[in-house]
Amino acid sequence: MVIGHECAGIVEEIGSEVTHLVPGDRVALEPGISCWRCSYCKQGSYNLCPEMKFFATPPVHGSLANQVVHPADLCFKLPEDITLEEGAMCEPLSVGVHACRRANVGPETNVLIMGAGPIGLVALLAARAFGAPRVVIVDVDEFRLSVAKDLGASETVKVSTNEEDVAGEVELIKKAMGESVDITLDCAGFNKTMTTALNATRPGGKVCLVGMGHNEMTVPLTPAAAREVDVVGVFRYKNTWPLCIEFLRSGKIDVKPLITHRFGFSQKEVEDAFETSARGGSAIKVMFNL
Amino acid sequence: MVIGHECAGIVEEIGSEVTHLVPGDRVALEPGISCWRCSYCKQGSYNLCPEMKFFATPPVHGSLANQVVHPADLCFKLPEDITLEEGAMCEPLSVGVHACRRANVGPETNVLIMGAGPIGLVALLAARAFGAPRVVIVDVDEFRLSVAKDLGASETVKVSTNEEDVAGEVELIKKAMGESVDITLDCAGFNKTMTTALNATRPGGKVCLVGMGHNEMTVPLTPAAAREVDVVGVFRYKNTWPLCIEFLRSGKIDVKPLITHRFGFSQKEVEDAFETSARGGSAIKVMFNL
Amino acid sequence: MVIGHECAGIVEEIGSEVTHLVPGDRVALEPGISCWRCSYCKQGSYNLCPEMKFFATPPVHGSLANQVVHPADLCFKLPEDITLEEGAMCEPLSVGVHACRRANVGPETNVLIMGAGPIGLVALLAARAFGAPRVVIVDVDEFRLSVAKDLGASETVKVSTNEEDVAGEVELIKKAMGESVDITLDCAGFNKTMTTALNATRPGGKVCLVGMGHNEMTVPLTPAAAREVDVVGVFRYKNTWPLCIEFLRSGKIDVKPLITHRFGFSQKEVEDAFETSARGGSAIKVMFNL
Amino acid sequence: MVIGHECAGIVEEIGSEVTHLVPGDRVALEPGISCWRCSYCKQGSYNLCPEMKFFATPPVHGSLANQVVHPADLCFKLPEDITLEEGAMCEPLSVGVHACRRANVGPETNVLIMGAGPIGLVALLAARAFGAPRVVIVDVDEFRLSVAKDLGASETVKVSTNEEDVAGEVELIKKAMGESVDITLDCAGFNKTMTTALNATRPGGKVCLVGMGHNEMTVPLTPAAAREVDVVGVFRYKNTWPLCIEFLRSGKIDVKPLITHRFGFSQKEVEDAFETSARGGSAIKVMFNL
Repeated sequence: MVIGHECAGIVEEIGSEVTHLVPGDRVALEPGISCWRCSYCKQGSYNLCPEMKFFATPPVHGSLANQVVHPADLCFKLPEDITLEEGAMCEPLSVGVHACRRANVGPETNVLIMGAGPIGLVALLAARAFGAPRVVIVDVDEFRLSVAKDLGASETVKVSTNEEDVAGEVELIKKAMGESVDITLDCAGFNKTMTTALNATRPGGKVCLVGMGHNEMTVPLTPAAAREVDVVGVFRYKNTWPLCIEFLRSGKIDVKPLITHRFGFSQKEVEDAFETSARGGSAIKVMFNL
Repeated sequence: MVIGHECAGIVEEIGSEVTHLVPGDRVALEPGISCWRCSYCKQGSYNLCPEMKFFATPPVHGSLANQVVHPADLCFKLPEDITLEEGAMCEPLSVGVHACRRANVGPETNVLIMGAGPIGLVALLAARAFGAPRVVIVDVDEFRLSVAKDLGASETVKVSTNEEDVAGEVELIKKAMGESVDITLDCAGFNKTMTTALNATRPGGKVCLVGMGHNEMTVPLTPAAAREVDVVGVFRYKNTWPLCIEFLRSGKIDVKPLITHRFGFSQKEVEDAFETSARGGSAIKVMFNL
Repeated sequence: MVIGHECAGIVEEIGSEVTHLVPGDRVALEPGISCWRCSYCKQGSYNLCPEMKFFATPPVHGSLANQVVHPADLCFKLPEDITLEEGAMCEPLSVGVHACRRANVGPETNVLIMGAGPIGLVALLAARAFGAPRVVIVDVDEFRLSVAKDLGASETVKVSTNEEDVAGEVELIKKAMGESVDITLDCAGFNKTMTTALNATRPGGKVCLVGMGHNEMTVPLTPAAAREVDVVGVFRYKNTWPLCIEFLRSGKIDVKPLITHRFGFSQKEVEDAFETSARGGSAIKVMFNL
Repeated sequence: MVIGHECAGIVEEIGSEVTHLVPGDRVALEPGISCWRCSYCKQGSYNLCPEMKFFATPPVHGSLANQVVHPADLCFKLPEDITLEEGAMCEPLSVGVHACRRANVGPETNVLIMGAGPIGLVALLAARAFGAPRVVIVDVDEFRLSVAKDLGASETVKVSTNEEDVAGEVELIKKAMGESVDITLDCAGFNKTMTTALNATRPGGKVCLVGMGHNEMTVPLTPAAAREVDVVGVFRYKNTWPLCIEFLRSGKIDVKPLITHRFGFSQKEVEDAFETSARGGSAIKVMFNL
């Protein structure tokens, strides 16, 4: 099966009813095709459509290809000064945008982000763009935290993987924030990160569970619920491409620092690319260019 | 310390600025006095006020007394045909009402209730009053389920305490509902009830954690979050007395069947009352009458 | 052009991908076909789709016909005990349901309805079904008000067409309500009804403008805005059929009293039907049966 | 009666229970004291409290004084680098902030502002701070528009006072916006500005009526309602001081350009100040300094 679901490209051909695109247009692609007939689709929650056909989700092929056929309404024209690479970044950025929307991030909410991996970083960029006055980000890795700092984190907090350190780390986080932690985006999704998230968030706040480190979770859910700290989930995204492109256009978000490596499309280069990505280290996003 | 926080009584005396009450009025009492100065109070979330003074929460005495002094704006006049007993029931009913509000129960949401104890039963009454088309209730106890059925549950499902039965019980619940489980109110709060709740609720639905059986919880939180099943918590209630009284007035809710035992206020009777309540069995709510 | 957009019928044939219907099923039809490609459709506001194709809206033919071809996802199966006539009533009822949703009618909102014509009456039925504790309805016509009373209005208020009577009539309305007027559904849409609506509604309440009597309006909008009385509009409806059918199934709404006249489909009967409808009087809804 | 309701000052004395302030602290004052007992206060809508006591609203004296006694919870400490003048500007800025909140301005809503007077300008600053991607502002006066442009308006549109020009001006506004007009803040409140607002706003958008030029309004309310363009009102503000101070602290808003004139507190200077303000021209905000 062909993999890949983060992509952008140039329009080669359009259907007879397509009016918003012409061949030659540069477009970013939203990868999921929903049914538009079920109650989820009709109510604007098309990301939850049970009939969704999604790039690289069996049996649907992905977009790591020279050509794909895709519905025109899922192809979003890029402004002149936005590159195809940036266009492809709309997909991961959409995860951060959807999380911020679901958690209601805005100019009145300080945000804590657990995890400074690729998802944590796009969440950081999105939270800043949604106007969060302070964004504190937490990780076990110094390098990742330094990248987060460069991308606009107000403060960073280095933590351990030891679950017994939670109480002390929550104090460090609160001190780093200075003000209340209104929303936490857990972009790691482990027992420890979620425990920290639930305990650090203020009464009446929200925790958005984005990462999927653990499946079954052992966490202090009851004391959090008794402070009305709500847990909201995310599944992919919906209606995010226009906003992502607007954020790129206005300069509120710059995704270019996330693109750390670039490869061509030869057999050799593709292999190198996957190795680079798997190795981690300084690799955040590894991009293929035709 | 004096205990008790579910009460109603007759006004003996009023302050000089009180205009909505006169001595002799029969009133139900909301037990918590918040500060009205903090950001929670000012934003309408006074139940989360960190300075809350609440009946029977140390060092504040409770209401199991012949007389209490209480702010007039927390004393709600009862209509003529509502008894003091029903008035006292506004407190537990408020828990159900607040849960329904937080979970957005209405005529478009089928509701599953985990647990048919006193909290589960008031949640059932509230869910019906908020217009839920179908309410399925689950418990391990046949008698409780039969009470729930009498109080208006659409269907009841008897379950075990064995955690390995969850998958099968979720199927039974879905079958009993017939339609989607849009909202689940977990009025028990154990690993098993919460696991059932998370697994039974439809994508995009809500689980409200009301009961507090377990503190730390081991539950499949990640797969639920990945279906955008949100977990909302509750802490007591806010602005519920007027609505509870309206539900009693209109007959949309009848709390009388929940009052299973009545005692006077002598030493002997008080002791009997607590024994009755502790014994469980057919006792749902045990009432003291002066 | 063929007119008609309120209809129900029996499935004759289905497309190859249709799974929720079989020939012989009795279905109610939602009349508008939206594009499912524009931002309105994708965000769940398909009623605002600029490409909407709607029965009897030129150049689209209506449903006053022996046979229509219609998308299966807009055909809603009727439960066994709901007649085709009741099914056809889902269309006007949807207007009331959509208005109640937009105005947030529920068990905590008393509702004032301006106008007891067909739209006012379906708004009344919907407001009751959404749980409004008190519904006061206003009209110039005694007969209409008596129908409204029979359909469940808490109180009725007879008013004049004289604009100078507004102040006094607002007092009458407030007295009839007894409690605050939280939401007003103006189902007439004239300067006078809207002025009454704006003035009668409590600070922080909502006025939903449903009727379209006047186009340009001269109303005290500024003083209403300065009390944060919001004005919300409605355009048709969205996602209402399942809820309407549920209201009919559960008995929360009975539309049968609104069907005052029935005709067959011969030339003569069709002419009589339109005359009956135009004459007004006791005619509320005039139904054709094949 | 003493007038004045926009002020900041230095704490001289505090009550025995005040813990967040000490004498010498520099504070901005929120001018309204609500009752904290009514249903509006309890539900977080204290700006609608019927018992509100507000600076300079008879019989309550205003703040144009050397000393005022005010509840500590309405005195908000200013960060070190924010001047008292900027602190006093929190009051007019609050009007813009409240309007943006009520209309749900954010990074996904382009905003049109009718009127570039002092209220229009604070609305502009607030809309930018809430993340509106494009803000177009409209006025009859070139100088005001040039100030608006300097303060960050994306585009300005000069209009006439002639009501017959509405259609053409709506076209100019749409062209200036380039994208959909999602929200309009009418900071003038005349028939013509409101007509323009209603007609320019996209289906499903919002118009917030802030200005109060006309009392009774003659406007095309019905066609706007039929496109689900909602009209929301504002009355003063609530819970805005912390956010205003945060906007000043972070530099997202700079109110200093709005302070065009400064006067002392002598008889002569006070007279000059009011003359300056009444004369208009280049005067936006005229400030008194002790």
